[in-house]
Amino acid sequence: METNPSWTLRSYPSAMPTVENWVLEDRPIPTPAPGELLVKTLWLSVDPYMRGRISPAKNYASGFKLGDLMYGGGVGEVVRSESSDFKPGDVVMSDYFGWQPFSVIPSQSAKRITNSDAPVQASLSYLGMPGLTAYFSLLRTGAAKQGETVLISAASGAVGQIAGQIARIKGCDPVAVAGSDEKLAWCQELGYRAGINHRTSKDLVADVAAACPNGIDVFLDNTAGPIHDAAMLNLNVFGRVAIVGTIALADRFDQPDVGLRHLRKTLITRARIEGFLLDDFAADYASALADLLSWYKQGLLQTREDVAVGIESVPHAFVRMLKGENFGKQLIKL
Amino acid sequence: METNPSWTLRSYPSAMPTVENWVLEDRPIPTPAPGELLVKTLWLSVDPYMRGRISPAKNYASGFKLGDLMYGGGVGEVVRSESSDFKPGDVVMSDYFGWQPFSVIPSQSAKRITNSDAPVQASLSYLGMPGLTAYFSLLRTGAAKQGETVLISAASGAVGQIAGQIARIKGCDPVAVAGSDEKLAWCQELGYRAGINHRTSKDLVADVAAACPNGIDVFLDNTAGPIHDAAMLNLNVFGRVAIVGTIALADRFDQPDVGLRHLRKTLITRARIEGFLLDDFAADYASALADLLSWYKQGLLQTREDVAVGIESVPHAFVRMLKGENFGKQLIKL
Repeated sequence: METNPSWTLRSYPSAMPTVENWVLEDRPIPTPAPGELLVKTLWLSVDPYMRGRISPAKNYASGFKLGDLMYGGGVGEVVRSESSDFKPGDVVMSDYFGWQPFSVIPSQSAKRITNSDAPVQASLSYLGMPGLTAYFSLLRTGAAKQGETVLISAASGAVGQIAGQIARIKGCDPVAVAGSDEKLAWCQELGYRAGINHRTSKDLVADVAAACPNGIDVFLDNTAGPIHDAAMLNLNVFGRVAIVGTIALADRFDQPDVGLRHLRKTLITRARIEGFLLDDFAADYASALADLLSWYKQGLLQTREDVAVGIESVPHAFVRMLKGENFGKQLIKL
Repeated sequence: METNPSWTLRSYPSAMPTVENWVLEDRPIPTPAPGELLVKTLWLSVDPYMRGRISPAKNYASGFKLGDLMYGGGVGEVVRSESSDFKPGDVVMSDYFGWQPFSVIPSQSAKRITNSDAPVQASLSYLGMPGLTAYFSLLRTGAAKQGETVLISAASGAVGQIAGQIARIKGCDPVAVAGSDEKLAWCQELGYRAGINHRTSKDLVADVAAACPNGIDVFLDNTAGPIHDAAMLNLNVFGRVAIVGTIALADRFDQPDVGLRHLRKTLITRARIEGFLLDDFAADYASALADLLSWYKQGLLQTREDVAVGIESVPHAFVRMLKGENFGKQLIKL
């Protein structure tokens, strides 16, 4: 009989999470109730938004309690179905995959993966949440237009690598901020025109200014922190800032963030700063996914995965992603 | 022969401006060149935006240099016209009135005041820049809708007193933040449902929460500073924040503003924070002014002026307005 080692939350991190915040418990393979599916996990995804779920602070995503089974995005094969919409053998993605080899998910959360033009784990990256986030944050919230300079932080990450390429497809001038020269070299291959290494820069404001000689029209802020300041101080009149993520705050999530405030800059530029949550665009997922798939099939979307292997690796993969040590979309293959 | 005592900038303020930053010089009555008008000043206006013009820092309004004649909004009577569009006796408003009894202004900047339904100085308050600022910041940038809670800082000031009444006219639920109980009593007369005295509050965040039990949908931020924080921490999902002014920074204009940063709150609420500059709405001034005049004639717009008298009083009136010591729209009557 197969075992089902499952990650549960042992403690809330006080600063940057460590693998000790979770514990691997052997749990039985669960039994699906009516309306549920038992799935065998093929891929798991770890994403920055999950940092907010392991904080006792109020957040937009309901948080995990101590002892709770962790869950997040995943792809798997249906083993047993208690829903007439799915049958064993179907490959599905859902945001409710437990961090475990066998998981029970609500059938309403599951989406059958029928596309054979891309690998199944694409549903966790460029044909899923990160790709859609890139698409809508750039084109809707950011309202990027041809010829505009678009600064993208975490530029080689799951969202950034797609956003930079969409910006190029749309005739924008994308500029990358990333944490290593290797990542920036990859960003250049993707079509980013210039890049700033935020870990080695001695003056981020000046380096962003040098990389964006015409100023910044659209800023996709995936990090908050000092990169936010460097972008705001180089923002053009009528600039748009999409607040997509705050991963630079991963180590101080429960403390108020204090730093430069850009209210006068906002007033003077008439900038529009807007928080981004993908769910708000659900009505338009289908057409966005059609665009993304079409670009992928035309060879316009290069992507890079950073794949950890085995259920044991999940917390480690999550933490290294939070630290920016991954290179490309962080996935776990079971 | 009449003299023309004129205020020029003697020094840049390092913190809160004082009257010693200006000097009253006797200047000759100027001679208009072709395209210009010589006007006899009837009213002068001092407004928060002028703080940015007496800073050596880069700003949206081109700054005064040391020794420059100060100028701003005013109403006056044309004495001599070098433009076929105006004749002596016309009463005009312009944003280029010197701080002096006789001033030369570009005729292109002048707008004839023909409306006899309101006093001429209304062109400097509810039928001018402050009224239009209230109108567009509330209805366009803030996109306030019926039933929504609207928090307005500097609520009894030139912009705030109009914004609160427009909010009431539009069926919103306006809540005032002001600096004295007398101002709040006046705000209540105007139709504000509740108010917070930010000078006596011991916990602004809690007091704003208590005054806005349904949260804040629209925040007209005329001040920045701690009131900004109290509003942001009570902001509803999809809240809109119009950054209209930063008068709380009047004493530290040349230093970076440091404090709480609300990027995670912005993300979680998907708030839209947008800088406001009235000029961007120029194409729609006429219809907005028609609305404002119509409301005024229906008795729906109460307004209060704080009138200083005489050219000698201009810097003092400006400084006390920056400190919030005025009560209503600050004007100077010559």
